[in-house]
Amino acid sequence: MEYNKMSPAQLEAEYAAVSQRFEKLKGKGLKLDMSRGKPGKEQLDLVSDILTVLQKPEDCVENGFDVRNYGELTGLPCAKTYFADVLGCKPEECFIGGNASLTLMYDLIAKAFTHGLLHSEKPWCKLDTVKFLCPSPGYDRHFKVTESFGMDLITIPMTGTGPDMDAVEEAVKDPAVKGIWCVPKYSNPDGIIYSDETIRRIASLKPAAPDFVVMWDNAYCIHEFEGDYVPFPDILSLCREAGNPDMVFEFASTSKVTFPGAGVSVMASSAENIKYMVSLLTFQTISYDKVNQLRHVRYLKDKAHTLELMKKHAAILGPKFRTVLDALEREIAPLGIASWKRPSGGYFVSLDTEDGLAKRTLALCKEAGVVMTGAGATFPYGKDPRDRNIRIAPSLPPVAELEMAIDVFCVCLRLAALEKRLGK
Amino acid sequence: MEYNKMSPAQLEAEYAAVSQRFEKLKGKGLKLDMSRGKPGKEQLDLVSDILTVLQKPEDCVENGFDVRNYGELTGLPCAKTYFADVLGCKPEECFIGGNASLTLMYDLIAKAFTHGLLHSEKPWCKLDTVKFLCPSPGYDRHFKVTESFGMDLITIPMTGTGPDMDAVEEAVKDPAVKGIWCVPKYSNPDGIIYSDETIRRIASLKPAAPDFVVMWDNAYCIHEFEGDYVPFPDILSLCREAGNPDMVFEFASTSKVTFPGAGVSVMASSAENIKYMVSLLTFQTISYDKVNQLRHVRYLKDKAHTLELMKKHAAILGPKFRTVLDALEREIAPLGIASWKRPSGGYFVSLDTEDGLAKRTLALCKEAGVVMTGAGATFPYGKDPRDRNIRIAPSLPPVAELEMAIDVFCVCLRLAALEKRLGK
Repeated sequence: MEYNKMSPAQLEAEYAAVSQRFEKLKGKGLKLDMSRGKPGKEQLDLVSDILTVLQKPEDCVENGFDVRNYGELTGLPCAKTYFADVLGCKPEECFIGGNASLTLMYDLIAKAFTHGLLHSEKPWCKLDTVKFLCPSPGYDRHFKVTESFGMDLITIPMTGTGPDMDAVEEAVKDPAVKGIWCVPKYSNPDGIIYSDETIRRIASLKPAAPDFVVMWDNAYCIHEFEGDYVPFPDILSLCREAGNPDMVFEFASTSKVTFPGAGVSVMASSAENIKYMVSLLTFQTISYDKVNQLRHVRYLKDKAHTLELMKKHAAILGPKFRTVLDALEREIAPLGIASWKRPSGGYFVSLDTEDGLAKRTLALCKEAGVVMTGAGATFPYGKDPRDRNIRIAPSLPPVAELEMAIDVFCVCLRLAALEKRLGK
Repeated sequence: MEYNKMSPAQLEAEYAAVSQRFEKLKGKGLKLDMSRGKPGKEQLDLVSDILTVLQKPEDCVENGFDVRNYGELTGLPCAKTYFADVLGCKPEECFIGGNASLTLMYDLIAKAFTHGLLHSEKPWCKLDTVKFLCPSPGYDRHFKVTESFGMDLITIPMTGTGPDMDAVEEAVKDPAVKGIWCVPKYSNPDGIIYSDETIRRIASLKPAAPDFVVMWDNAYCIHEFEGDYVPFPDILSLCREAGNPDMVFEFASTSKVTFPGAGVSVMASSAENIKYMVSLLTFQTISYDKVNQLRHVRYLKDKAHTLELMKKHAAILGPKFRTVLDALEREIAPLGIASWKRPSGGYFVSLDTEDGLAKRTLALCKEAGVVMTGAGATFPYGKDPRDRNIRIAPSLPPVAELEMAIDVFCVCLRLAALEKRLGK
């Protein structure tokens, strides 16, 4: 029965029952973690063969080039071909980075700040105000990159089809608005795929700032955990066709394909943008780890072969997500105290409680030994204006632990909803 | 016979002979490279076992921690212990980076520019003028990092014992002078080791800028190619004892121990400095490549074991350096047209021609198919005021090629010296 339809007596009875369950769970001394989008051990074990794909000196030569020595700042040609295949862009649009796409994103923003982008009139550090659009709920690490450079973070509401494009189109009329963070496929945390209409409107933006940048973090481009691979348009082509060839930088990595933090990252953009970025990156490094680039290309081969591997990841992740989603469906849906989407890819379940319950729910979870992403983390400055969004990350714990963790979560959410109603 | 003691007729005869040799060499259509400090293939082959040191999931667990997943921004504890052993500092002073110490250096300077260092009054981008001391001849990539942020590069003469410390002590009285680049052991390119007196004076500097930084690039800390390992003082202790605990950042990497550009880097500094840097680096990455960190620690083990490997590198590099130095001794020394030092470690031979011969010599080399580091590269802005310093990098070519390359070089140098005397 929905909590809103319960009588005061029913609510008190429910509160007593739920409190008792909470105390019992607390007594178990659990130590569970649903806080970050980390792959689980079973997934890491899937790809062990990558460790030994290069064994001898001759394995390290690709097209006559010895990858063990300095050079090739923009990455191995075979790595560019690989990522172009995955992303649907051209090899010459790909710049291959190190172990973290976040670092490529940070370095891009940092260079905009210190030197400006290709079409900047001056470095952003010379401007009084720089504003950045943050579709929310979104990814805390994105927001923090721009926050760390003192930019004003502008919240853009997320809808079921991507960022609220009316709001975006209005916001970019301000020349101080310099960019937008996007996770277009299985958005973090909502798990939605931007609609074709949203993507078209983004590619066709006419921002007042000549150096407006779309930070297109395609982190989950091949990361379905239910069903088949969902084809996705190439944003670089769309921007080019819309007359905005230099407006977008796309990012991706193999962190959730092979090893998190020991994979290979890519930054894709127009040839002009890449050329400009190389003119700045050349001071930062001689080259990224090409041995690891070759290791990945030899192991992952191409998109088709990688999608087969992603099916194996899905076989591990699918049951974990179903555990969480089924528990929510069973325990929470009938009570009318929260809503969520049922994603088929990505690494998160995003849940909205009734207003004002997120912090309290997570405090209760912590008390019962379940660590979750902090309340508010999915909003700029870590402040959720309605204190309702909770990001659930089911990927790390084994299913047995996850069952316990989501059980604790459901009890805590119910308790928070009851406390609110009963003024406890 | 010294060229300065030759009669005009003797010079003309010599010119005719050397020209003939030059034309003959040119006719060979050589394509040789002594431009960069790249290890040769034989050195890369030495360390092939590192490719397979981690093979199975259980190999990737160190002290109960699975290095295949996200986390540990500051690096694996075992990697800190390893580098502390090599550098003679404490593990907690070590921050383990990615594949390039140059990137750590760049990121430090970039963060000084965007956010300031621990003792900065404001970010350097907010200052009208930032000056940086560049002991020269020095490493072009160092100078370019600071140049890329628009800093004024101040040339400090190099002496046989390190930077001219009288000049340094005078320069740091200017509060706009924010730091100094140092390669203290087997300096790039001179190959000298800073004297104890120089190191003591650096550690005891009293700069006007509270955030003055010593960029201590200990790139060749264990890189002897002749004789035994030369012990070297820990700059962190010396700065601490001199009351400058936060003045220095030390850098090193395994790029010339295992694979260039696929190794592990380290930044060592006071615990306070590391803490401050982590507070900024946490926005740039979740963690560096810890699989590669573990691979290195398992393979290199400790300093003693690494020094054994360095002996094997020395057995390859020693003959290459002797080929170059013996040729110079034989072909050039009697002529009195250049001087150089005989290093016992590092990756370079630094040669000073008579004033005004460097560019011409290297242009002739290029004509004859031998690529060298560009003339002037070892000075700020790529401008050698006396046009005399040439950096020779003998590490990459096999000895047979090196013999040809240094032969070409000697002929070109002689030709340049004769052209000058004869007004050709």
